[in-house]
Amino acid sequence: MRSNELKNSTPVEEMKKLRLISAIKTPYLPDGRFDLEAYDSLVRTQVDHGVEGLIVGGTTGEGHLMNWDEHIMLIAHTVNCFGDKIKVIGNTGSNSTREAIHATEQGFAAGMHAALHINPYYGKTSMDGLLLHFKSVLAMGPTVIYNVPGRTGQDIPPSVIEKIASSPNFLGVKECMGNERVKHYTEQGIAVWSGNDDQCHDSRWDFGARGVISVVSNLVPKLMHELMFSGKNQERNEKLMPLINWLFVEPNPIGLNTALSQLGLIRPVFRLPYAPLNVEKRQEFVKIVEGIGRENFPGCTEVRLLKDDDFLLVERY
Amino acid sequence: MRSNELKNSTPVEEMKKLRLISAIKTPYLPDGRFDLEAYDSLVRTQVDHGVEGLIVGGTTGEGHLMNWDEHIMLIAHTVNCFGDKIKVIGNTGSNSTREAIHATEQGFAAGMHAALHINPYYGKTSMDGLLLHFKSVLAMGPTVIYNVPGRTGQDIPPSVIEKIASSPNFLGVKECMGNERVKHYTEQGIAVWSGNDDQCHDSRWDFGARGVISVVSNLVPKLMHELMFSGKNQERNEKLMPLINWLFVEPNPIGLNTALSQLGLIRPVFRLPYAPLNVEKRQEFVKIVEGIGRENFPGCTEVRLLKDDDFLLVERY
Amino acid sequence: MRSNELKNSTPVEEMKKLRLISAIKTPYLPDGRFDLEAYDSLVRTQVDHGVEGLIVGGTTGEGHLMNWDEHIMLIAHTVNCFGDKIKVIGNTGSNSTREAIHATEQGFAAGMHAALHINPYYGKTSMDGLLLHFKSVLAMGPTVIYNVPGRTGQDIPPSVIEKIASSPNFLGVKECMGNERVKHYTEQGIAVWSGNDDQCHDSRWDFGARGVISVVSNLVPKLMHELMFSGKNQERNEKLMPLINWLFVEPNPIGLNTALSQLGLIRPVFRLPYAPLNVEKRQEFVKIVEGIGRENFPGCTEVRLLKDDDFLLVERY
Amino acid sequence: MRSNELKNSTPVEEMKKLRLISAIKTPYLPDGRFDLEAYDSLVRTQVDHGVEGLIVGGTTGEGHLMNWDEHIMLIAHTVNCFGDKIKVIGNTGSNSTREAIHATEQGFAAGMHAALHINPYYGKTSMDGLLLHFKSVLAMGPTVIYNVPGRTGQDIPPSVIEKIASSPNFLGVKECMGNERVKHYTEQGIAVWSGNDDQCHDSRWDFGARGVISVVSNLVPKLMHELMFSGKNQERNEKLMPLINWLFVEPNPIGLNTALSQLGLIRPVFRLPYAPLNVEKRQEFVKIVEGIGRENFPGCTEVRLLKDDDFLLVERY
Repeated sequence: MRSNELKNSTPVEEMKKLRLISAIKTPYLPDGRFDLEAYDSLVRTQVDHGVEGLIVGGTTGEGHLMNWDEHIMLIAHTVNCFGDKIKVIGNTGSNSTREAIHATEQGFAAGMHAALHINPYYGKTSMDGLLLHFKSVLAMGPTVIYNVPGRTGQDIPPSVIEKIASSPNFLGVKECMGNERVKHYTEQGIAVWSGNDDQCHDSRWDFGARGVISVVSNLVPKLMHELMFSGKNQERNEKLMPLINWLFVEPNPIGLNTALSQLGLIRPVFRLPYAPLNVEKRQEFVKIVEGIGRENFPGCTEVRLLKDDDFLLVERY
Repeated sequence: MRSNELKNSTPVEEMKKLRLISAIKTPYLPDGRFDLEAYDSLVRTQVDHGVEGLIVGGTTGEGHLMNWDEHIMLIAHTVNCFGDKIKVIGNTGSNSTREAIHATEQGFAAGMHAALHINPYYGKTSMDGLLLHFKSVLAMGPTVIYNVPGRTGQDIPPSVIEKIASSPNFLGVKECMGNERVKHYTEQGIAVWSGNDDQCHDSRWDFGARGVISVVSNLVPKLMHELMFSGKNQERNEKLMPLINWLFVEPNPIGLNTALSQLGLIRPVFRLPYAPLNVEKRQEFVKIVEGIGRENFPGCTEVRLLKDDDFLLVERY
Repeated sequence: MRSNELKNSTPVEEMKKLRLISAIKTPYLPDGRFDLEAYDSLVRTQVDHGVEGLIVGGTTGEGHLMNWDEHIMLIAHTVNCFGDKIKVIGNTGSNSTREAIHATEQGFAAGMHAALHINPYYGKTSMDGLLLHFKSVLAMGPTVIYNVPGRTGQDIPPSVIEKIASSPNFLGVKECMGNERVKHYTEQGIAVWSGNDDQCHDSRWDFGARGVISVVSNLVPKLMHELMFSGKNQERNEKLMPLINWLFVEPNPIGLNTALSQLGLIRPVFRLPYAPLNVEKRQEFVKIVEGIGRENFPGCTEVRLLKDDDFLLVERY
Repeated sequence: MRSNELKNSTPVEEMKKLRLISAIKTPYLPDGRFDLEAYDSLVRTQVDHGVEGLIVGGTTGEGHLMNWDEHIMLIAHTVNCFGDKIKVIGNTGSNSTREAIHATEQGFAAGMHAALHINPYYGKTSMDGLLLHFKSVLAMGPTVIYNVPGRTGQDIPPSVIEKIASSPNFLGVKECMGNERVKHYTEQGIAVWSGNDDQCHDSRWDFGARGVISVVSNLVPKLMHELMFSGKNQERNEKLMPLINWLFVEPNPIGLNTALSQLGLIRPVFRLPYAPLNVEKRQEFVKIVEGIGRENFPGCTEVRLLKDDDFLLVERY
């Protein structure tokens, strides 16, 4: 089903080499539709500062708040505008196998370079069901599996990953279960991207991870590039910790949405059920930016303290 | 927005009196569409054996594997056929506030008696976001809140429930966090239905729960009716434990789907990512039925041991 | 697939006896969603003044401007609230056979009494295709076929109707091709409802039509009831002509929407591409109402002349 | 809303220069999904034989039988694979203004070069409504208006076209009303593409038309290229008439689908309500191909006479 005519198709081995992938934010207009102008600007900044791949419509990008047609359109748009400069990994996973199949087919038809697949969250299933779920989508193209039990309520155990790792389309795992798990995989030659910004330095330099699928790189792509490319450096890592800890004080992407709003890089529009961090936390952010240096937040000319009334929360869109 | 013309509208106080509610199974045709004939038969059995309410398209009914139009149609169908005999509670919750609003509006317009609302699983949100999410749907009609951290990755704490409990549409909580939590609510006069079949007897008789939202009642409605209505009786409770433990050996509704298939009450068709229990477990089920007595499984004329090949797993439908 | 549990199911022979069916208007809130309160009031008026059946989401009801989930919900809502008092005929037709099948299945599952099916407008097809299209939906339940070449670009010839007339679910034809065509069918015992308000008196009394599927009955149900039930009477018929001619000066339901707005029975909200009649026509309407007598427009307490600014035209909803 | 990052964006003036545009066929797999491999091959043939633009999901491409997500995906896919070689004009029109707006936004976001917009068929509207409908989409990007009263039941009169012709995004008209209408427009400098293969030679050479939006070019692109580029030549035109007349003996794309099936360029799969031409017509086609010369049907190695049983008609997909 993969078309030979697709532009910029990328072999599995090349996709495995990516070190810095951002889970890109989706910005909104006041009526809740996508703000493609702001999106293009965010992606352009990523491209310009060394980010090599994007997760489009991930949990960070609020894929779970999109209709599938919006989601596929955003993948298609990203591929069209930036697919020659950065790898586009569509989060076409779902807890419904039918939806995962349909979206993945559409995403690959639209030219995405790879798919990100989650295990069936909320509904959950057995190990047999998990294998059938992943097998039903693996045939379609290069695939990263995403393990985040804190969201899904269910760990994908190594036994499952190891059974699908031999698929020619298997790229590796985005893993949030910590560095022992990372090590377990990398010792077998299974590619791992850390799904935790606070662990990714160690994952990369001490536990064999390929790199990171990052949230904080939406804000400080250059610093994250150094973290992944310029050698082990705990001082560099420590410098980012206050920002990273702040970012995840509430479920992601609440912190990221608040941060980008205050940096003036997006309109302060939230799709419910997300709501901005409170004013104390927003004050903290201003100080954190100053601590790290505003010049490390590309695109930002000023960090503002927004008032509660500056934010728009949309429930119908 | 609630229409005055709707049939069988039920006041909140009357809805709170329900003790036995089933999370009804959705059966499928071989092509994966709903098998409405089998569904009607399942519901008829529930009505005939004392079940007072139904959750339509809950996690047990695999609402997360439905398109919204299928889901609303099933609510409408149930209301049309059985709404004068049993209370219809549509699971119109979602991790997307937009979808929850839209589905809940449609469900109430189609005549459902109440809505079941989950907190935003997988995406998760802050306590502020949680309150905004629930408030955006509570105005529409009678509402049960569902707390199941094992699926959602996030507990709804009492502080949130207590803030929304004063809404005139708030019915109570379907709670899976155990009997201390149940007690905490019931002591304040907040209605609770146990979401755990293995705890519901104690929840009801020792911790003040109103009743249960049950899975096992799909199989043994009369026994569950006795458990909720005929007084504290540990012996009666213990007798059901082997069945209940078997039912949840894998994520629900895998056990239920397997059981109903072997009882001949549904076609052995699974929508992925669900797959049947293995043959050893299926053999166990035959014995469990015999132990409890087949006469307690209404509608069943024979319990069969199905072979692997008897099951049909559908991925596109 | 038709459920035995559905309420108020009506045999084909009884459905054929209906004489006065209204193609009911769908009113909107200012944001473009359905105004169910106004809808219920319109339907209640129909019921109270002798209308026997409704087309829900017909071209008059702007089914072509609905999402299918809205459309099915409206059918379900109407069935729930009024299905014991009036027959609900869902316009589940489409120029896409897939959509017609899906919507018709859902409509019958939600309890509608019959389906209205159009031939594939715009896309059109061959006579072979037409027969296959109708056959794919006729098995599901009682069916009226709708022929309106002025909208579809293609006449359904008698040869097609006569081939499907033997289906046990075939109710008859809503025919807009004039009274010779009506006569051709009624002489063979094929039930016909006139689809043209200006011809329906003659169709009924001179050409054997069963009755009418009417637009003007939204405004003057009692007068239309007399026209269909109280014997041949050209004077009665002539009295309505100015209203009927006014109503169709632009493509329906532009006139009806304008009229109901000025009668104060709906909010003056139009979904694009519909726009109100101009002020001269709106002035005419006030006079026409006075000519016929406001007491013949049930529910109306005052007919107003609306200004251009009073109308709201919505394009996203 | 149009992104500055989109690849191959094409100025209105350059789009107006296109002479040969094909309304490309959408081929299907046996289960009714798109056959992208066959599609890519059809498009590649168009590109290789001088076709300059494509209508994706037009009436020929059966856009009215697609879900919108399929439709947008097909536009995105075409843009990705061929957007640097051929202009992609998405048929994002609809009789629902809401749907037209939504689809057009998505199509442009995915990179299409222009949109094709139809007037509201079947539902129809007033001239005021028509203008509002077109104005709501014209702001989004380069636009061709399509007038085909035989399908829509309503002519778009010159008065409407002339009112929107001054929009900077207005490209011109695909006109099916004949050469007097063509002339009326071209004399004012309004670009016209003939929508009738049998008239296009004269439209182009005698009435000032820019070119054609063709169906027959799916079969004989090179011959159509000569017809549009190599000067007035009635003999060349006449040679194509038997093929063109055969192609439209039933509503398009019935003939085209049958032809491509017999040429072996697509699987003989029809989405209902389309059905293949009968065997006598299929025999005629074999002779017509031989008359014109099989070498003029690129990609075809053999023209076969298919039997009734060779065709697959799908109703659910």
